[in-house]
Amino acid sequence: MKPGKDGYNVAIVGATGAVGRTMLEILTTRQFPVDRLRLLASSRSAGTVVETAWGDLTIEDLATADPSGTDIALFSAGADRSRAFAGSFAAAGAVVIDNSSAFRSDPDIPLVVAGVNDHAAFAHRGIIANPNCTTMVALMGVAPLARIAGLRRMVATSYQSVSGSGMAAMDELVDQVAWFQKNRDALVFGGWEEPDVKVYSRPIGWNVLPFAGEMAEDGHTNEEWKLVNESRKILDLPALVVEPTCVRVPVMVGHGIAASCYFDRPVDRQEAIEAIKASPGVQVWADRVATPLDSAGIDDVLVSRIRPTLSEDGGISLWAVGDNLRKGAALNTIEIAEVLVAG
Amino acid sequence: MKPGKDGYNVAIVGATGAVGRTMLEILTTRQFPVDRLRLLASSRSAGTVVETAWGDLTIEDLATADPSGTDIALFSAGADRSRAFAGSFAAAGAVVIDNSSAFRSDPDIPLVVAGVNDHAAFAHRGIIANPNCTTMVALMGVAPLARIAGLRRMVATSYQSVSGSGMAAMDELVDQVAWFQKNRDALVFGGWEEPDVKVYSRPIGWNVLPFAGEMAEDGHTNEEWKLVNESRKILDLPALVVEPTCVRVPVMVGHGIAASCYFDRPVDRQEAIEAIKASPGVQVWADRVATPLDSAGIDDVLVSRIRPTLSEDGGISLWAVGDNLRKGAALNTIEIAEVLVAG
Repeated sequence: MKPGKDGYNVAIVGATGAVGRTMLEILTTRQFPVDRLRLLASSRSAGTVVETAWGDLTIEDLATADPSGTDIALFSAGADRSRAFAGSFAAAGAVVIDNSSAFRSDPDIPLVVAGVNDHAAFAHRGIIANPNCTTMVALMGVAPLARIAGLRRMVATSYQSVSGSGMAAMDELVDQVAWFQKNRDALVFGGWEEPDVKVYSRPIGWNVLPFAGEMAEDGHTNEEWKLVNESRKILDLPALVVEPTCVRVPVMVGHGIAASCYFDRPVDRQEAIEAIKASPGVQVWADRVATPLDSAGIDDVLVSRIRPTLSEDGGISLWAVGDNLRKGAALNTIEIAEVLVAG
Repeated sequence: MKPGKDGYNVAIVGATGAVGRTMLEILTTRQFPVDRLRLLASSRSAGTVVETAWGDLTIEDLATADPSGTDIALFSAGADRSRAFAGSFAAAGAVVIDNSSAFRSDPDIPLVVAGVNDHAAFAHRGIIANPNCTTMVALMGVAPLARIAGLRRMVATSYQSVSGSGMAAMDELVDQVAWFQKNRDALVFGGWEEPDVKVYSRPIGWNVLPFAGEMAEDGHTNEEWKLVNESRKILDLPALVVEPTCVRVPVMVGHGIAASCYFDRPVDRQEAIEAIKASPGVQVWADRVATPLDSAGIDDVLVSRIRPTLSEDGGISLWAVGDNLRKGAALNTIEIAEVLVAG
């Protein structure tokens, strides 16, 4: 991967999605060294012209595009498209940084949270996986503690925004919020008729859905298993116990995670605050509560409510919240690219 | 407490609040044996006439009302008013069933979840305390498991609706939802100005607040300590370990609780389902996800996502959701009255 005169040839695959658009914005604002940019998406969007800092670009059809000449391909087009097309980009010499779940559990493919396990990125063979947005936000708060005291067990419960399910989910929330607003009594007394549901199996407006993803083994969803398996892989702790509950909430952007963590040795509040503060990409809000709205549109993950667990194990409970489109997705892929470029 | 010809003399104290109104509705629909009903509230509401199944009733001023002749006084007017007035009703011969936090931690005052520890009600000396709404919903799911296998530890994370904070909070949510609707970009990209906040310290519309109640000891809120101390008292397990996180969500009615529970002996999924099914006032939704909207306006607490914990402790994770105005408050006070009446 050698830069051209202004930098690298970068492709965004899935450029019209919620994460793809954020990738474009972050490449621009972080002044990533781009020589040539390509935008790719499904045939439905191909031909659309998008204004960018690198001129007006026409969206190319992923299915027929030639991957040659690409240095860095940022994929966020769903796991099926990653499985179908990431290999050809890698074979043509690109480093693929993939935001889907397609490769995360492959032991030969690094799974990287920038700021947590950057070193793992360099072991790539053409593809690097970006973790699930919930895992990412959780570990930005928990990894600094795991580093100093050895993480043994984490009970993690999520408050996931709808943008983690894409733009159609954001529209569904907006529609349902308006629909239920006209049925205010039903919100209090019940008796509503099920509104249109497309992305989710049940209403998300004025509600929470204690079920994110699809049912998988042992009564847990695939979203919950991602939190288990990805945390183990990123922290390099194969025996880590994770008890996950993944819940969708009627929030547009910003995933929150409540975690109670137990370590190999006791950790006190002040030590926990200092360890998290010393970690890049995280802000500790020690005396103020960080909410999803506070995290929307910013790069740092916010950690607050850092407190001792009430059991006698010397654990730490905390609340982490981060922009799932940025650190939870687009930002981390670009940070991984920055790690590679900096060498 | 001897009934008159049609039943008992019942007073609702705090009759104009969200819980007080629900008490009136539940007395009516459950056909509680009421001979005479009195409605009491602050001087602000005194004089208002309310249509009831027992005729048009004028709201009396709590501060100047004579408690004589009351058999059962259902209090939901805040802890300060309970501390000021519950004693005089009890001294005048009434049994006070108090929905506030005023007496819950008093070792001489029973704290009762109907269906869980009914026997405790009979030890009253004039006052019985109704637990916090979050504790109530959680224990409806967890107590049946504690009964069969001995509860050792519970990590509980809440998704609490705004009606738990009263009617002003419901209005605040509705206003903020409308306010942010006009600022949709701000929900995604940030850059919003703080909307009016009155009941909560931070915005609740399109957001979650990982802080319910007020800050208390050891970095936990008083709401979180209620979950700890009330669970210990109701289950009669003084050494129970509870790790609580209480979070407010933009839902009108219905508190959800995600709990991971560990017992003295392993419990499997089928055994857990059967134990909860056998308990009164609970529905097990084994193959369907129960949401706050499903719980609004109904009496039963709904329990779903019953599954083994992923650690090797043979624990159970579950999701319980219940109408915080009904089982979480008004319904339970009336169920306690029914327990007493049935003797």
